[in-house]
Amino acid sequence: MKFVKNDQAAVFALGGLGEIGKNTYGIQFQDEIILVDAGIKFPEDELLGIDYVIPDYTYLTQNQDKIKGLFITHGHEDHIGGIPYLLREINVPIYAGKLAAGLIRNKLEEHGLLRNTKLNTIQEDDVIKFRKTSVSFFRTTHSIPDSYGIVVKTPPGNIVHTGDFKFDFTPVGDPANLTKMAEIGREGVLCLLSDSTNSEVPGFTMSERVVGQNIHDIFSKVDGRLIFATFASNIYRLQQVVQAAVKHDRKIVVFGRSMESSIRIGQELGYIEAPDNTFVEANQINRLPANKVTILCTGSQGETMAALSRIANGTHRQVQINPGDTVVFSSSPIPGNTVSVSNTINKLYRAGADVIHGPLSNIHTSGHGSQDEQKLMLRLMQPKYFMPIHGEYRMLKEHMKLGEACDVKQENSFIMDNGDVLALGNDNAKIAGKIPSGAIYVDGSGIGDIGNIVLRDRRILSEEGLVMIVVSINMKEFKIASGPDIISRGFVYMRESEDLIKEAQKLVAKHLDKVMERKTSQWSEIKNEITDTIAPFLFKKTKRRPMILPIIMEV
Amino acid sequence: MKFVKNDQAAVFALGGLGEIGKNTYGIQFQDEIILVDAGIKFPEDELLGIDYVIPDYTYLTQNQDKIKGLFITHGHEDHIGGIPYLLREINVPIYAGKLAAGLIRNKLEEHGLLRNTKLNTIQEDDVIKFRKTSVSFFRTTHSIPDSYGIVVKTPPGNIVHTGDFKFDFTPVGDPANLTKMAEIGREGVLCLLSDSTNSEVPGFTMSERVVGQNIHDIFSKVDGRLIFATFASNIYRLQQVVQAAVKHDRKIVVFGRSMESSIRIGQELGYIEAPDNTFVEANQINRLPANKVTILCTGSQGETMAALSRIANGTHRQVQINPGDTVVFSSSPIPGNTVSVSNTINKLYRAGADVIHGPLSNIHTSGHGSQDEQKLMLRLMQPKYFMPIHGEYRMLKEHMKLGEACDVKQENSFIMDNGDVLALGNDNAKIAGKIPSGAIYVDGSGIGDIGNIVLRDRRILSEEGLVMIVVSINMKEFKIASGPDIISRGFVYMRESEDLIKEAQKLVAKHLDKVMERKTSQWSEIKNEITDTIAPFLFKKTKRRPMILPIIMEV
Repeated sequence: MKFVKNDQAAVFALGGLGEIGKNTYGIQFQDEIILVDAGIKFPEDELLGIDYVIPDYTYLTQNQDKIKGLFITHGHEDHIGGIPYLLREINVPIYAGKLAAGLIRNKLEEHGLLRNTKLNTIQEDDVIKFRKTSVSFFRTTHSIPDSYGIVVKTPPGNIVHTGDFKFDFTPVGDPANLTKMAEIGREGVLCLLSDSTNSEVPGFTMSERVVGQNIHDIFSKVDGRLIFATFASNIYRLQQVVQAAVKHDRKIVVFGRSMESSIRIGQELGYIEAPDNTFVEANQINRLPANKVTILCTGSQGETMAALSRIANGTHRQVQINPGDTVVFSSSPIPGNTVSVSNTINKLYRAGADVIHGPLSNIHTSGHGSQDEQKLMLRLMQPKYFMPIHGEYRMLKEHMKLGEACDVKQENSFIMDNGDVLALGNDNAKIAGKIPSGAIYVDGSGIGDIGNIVLRDRRILSEEGLVMIVVSINMKEFKIASGPDIISRGFVYMRESEDLIKEAQKLVAKHLDKVMERKTSQWSEIKNEITDTIAPFLFKKTKRRPMILPIIMEV
Repeated sequence: MKFVKNDQAAVFALGGLGEIGKNTYGIQFQDEIILVDAGIKFPEDELLGIDYVIPDYTYLTQNQDKIKGLFITHGHEDHIGGIPYLLREINVPIYAGKLAAGLIRNKLEEHGLLRNTKLNTIQEDDVIKFRKTSVSFFRTTHSIPDSYGIVVKTPPGNIVHTGDFKFDFTPVGDPANLTKMAEIGREGVLCLLSDSTNSEVPGFTMSERVVGQNIHDIFSKVDGRLIFATFASNIYRLQQVVQAAVKHDRKIVVFGRSMESSIRIGQELGYIEAPDNTFVEANQINRLPANKVTILCTGSQGETMAALSRIANGTHRQVQINPGDTVVFSSSPIPGNTVSVSNTINKLYRAGADVIHGPLSNIHTSGHGSQDEQKLMLRLMQPKYFMPIHGEYRMLKEHMKLGEACDVKQENSFIMDNGDVLALGNDNAKIAGKIPSGAIYVDGSGIGDIGNIVLRDRRILSEEGLVMIVVSINMKEFKIASGPDIISRGFVYMRESEDLIKEAQKLVAKHLDKVMERKTSQWSEIKNEITDTIAPFLFKKTKRRPMILPIIMEV
């Protein structure tokens, strides 16, 4: 990085700035790079057919000899989902807390990458030392166990990355290590990178214990079967549901692949404790009285193929909704899913269930701290420089305002884009340059082979469909050998539009006759003429603009 | 309706039950049908490329001789947007309040339907009498002026349709006519059809006056340009923005076709009053000091082509965001639009604007009454039978519970689906049968020509794209005359996937050689074989399942 001075540290992101997801940060001092997280992002609707989005790893590939380690703050997909893709490009040792390490191990196994990867499980008090930098940790609270903030010690100063966090003073599991955070602050923080997700939300995020109390209340009041849907990765929530079920003498049946694997990992690592025979097999479910049954399942986001959606649709093999069933959405819909969640709720009601959902029922809380928690972090860390991370632009901006309220000077705050490099000296900081960054689309097994042209085509095809005009031409005699035939998909229902198609066919045939007279063999010209003939005709008739695809076979 | 007795009235919906939108209700006594509203619905995302959804009008077409009139509760698209489509099927006189009539007139003109349609403007105290039934009105409050509830007097009893309503005791415009509602209730209501939209929201909906006060506060505090985005049809809101602008000595520039037309109609009908030269032309905008400018525009839902989105994208011809500009979203995003609204807000922040939005800023209120208002309506009307309308199933269900709380017996409440017919005697009521109902898709100028097959194709094309295999076969000699060529759209970027395509081509060519040896001319069989050859190959290579389209030209 020629634009960073030799006594400066560089801080950059390949993902996570100006967006929610694909969190991937780098802290570099001279020839040592510390990576923090390697996440994926789930695509917005307009990225038709795309499965995931990952960052452009070019800078890391070009500097792989400098990369000392990938440090993971916690085990959510937007922080660890990119690891298999990153490891295809470079080999790097991974450091992660117990649960994240377990989840990463699964992932590496699936991708056949476990054998060649060094995966280290860290404890809070570990210090990982390199030649010029070192990395230490502090325990935070988030919606998944074993979440850590990370301190990177560099010659110009300490750089702190909070990971995702909230301050829950009555959490489930170990509380955040306020003492250690205060000590880190006292020692001096050159730059704080802090989670901005909830910077538009005033106050404090509700405690997980309150959610637990409300779960217990539901168990106390409901006589029929209880069906709980929540995020599979929220082990604390699962833990609370399991505790309530045990206390109220209900068995638990688990549905959904990710839920089953969370319950298994949660039990293996000791987060979820339950007497033997608490969990029963799916086939037991109809032998138990309704008030002895808890179903724990995936689908709280209305995902089409998840257990709860199939239950709601009446297509689940083992569970049908009976009147008297109560379904609890212990979750909140992420913005792109509001409609599908709402549809699922309607179907459950129609099937006769009672449904408990929504913010008023207080059966879910965010994993991210609200404004007052973000301020608490700022007060504990007392950073000289501040870089809001993890969030859309508006959230970063709002977080910057909170920084100002907590005495971080405006000129010392940096709202950056992915790829921007912040050069940090011990008493200076500026955005000094840019490294490659961008969104790489993963579709099936293809990484980066879908670009804007393919997406534009998918968009047109999805809204207007496709009309093909197929014709064989005898090039020796300048005669049509066969066709023109018209085939369409996603345009009109052909059987009911025979007249339209015949008329279009005639139009093209007439035009081709003229073309043949010209004895031209300029295919692209002929194709354009076919398009120019048929497109206005179809628009006039249907007010639609399908993709037109003239196909000429030369025989 | 053979399943309704001669002394019973029938109540049914063709749209608006179990959904938000395409509100279309019918009340029939013997050979007299009163229609209430004829709306469209805006399609959910899964209806790819569909512009609107309208009801199936079959029952109305078959019984057009009985239809006495179409009565419009108010001028929103989900209550009047279906009129041009309905009028293509049947001729029916329309009765509507002043503003709705104005909007309908525009619509009929656009569709060339004005001349043959009898459009009557009603006053609150009008009574429209037919032989056996009569129709009267009561003024309600909603987010558009001239909203009415409708009373249909039938021999078995009075049937009341609330339209969309809230009770705003300090509204902008005339208050709802509580007195008349109480009188209607005292006279006796056999069945109440009441708006369920906000039945999941506790309490009372905030008054439009409070919004007005907050708009004034913004005008008082902001020194730069003010850009207001809101629903064009919310004339009260426009009125309040205009008043505030006038008071604070700012000029107004209007952008967006629907906003321009609302301002024009609002002024014509006297809802929007402003001194001459309050409204200025777009080209004046840069000549005025920032604190003298108000921009009133469309795009509060993040709609791609609307004025505000173009301003946010930097592609608006007349308005660029300057630092110091304040953009106000006087609106709330409807569920399908949360992501696009959020993106627009981010872009505005990035461009340097301050943005005021969201429920905490209290610059928007719903047009629908919350639970306590729905209860007030129930108490005023004291209906014998109750049918929650306008809402998804969950909302209807919640509204039914409110009915119970207000002494409507559970067995006297009817949660119905579109097409269900409620047979109402003076002391009996039951769902007696069903008439045709269903969703008809409008795409371009096509009405109902897009069905599930076309939509399924659009879905596949949008997510996976299309691969065509084109081959000409000489049928006399059983020889390939040309091809096989492979063409794809929305699948992979062809230029970067040459190897894949070549390999696929070879595979098909090899298979076709075998087919030629068999000397078969079973096209469909050959096509299936091509698909069966190439689909697994492409899936293995890409983990994608594009639509495969084999095209065989016989020469």
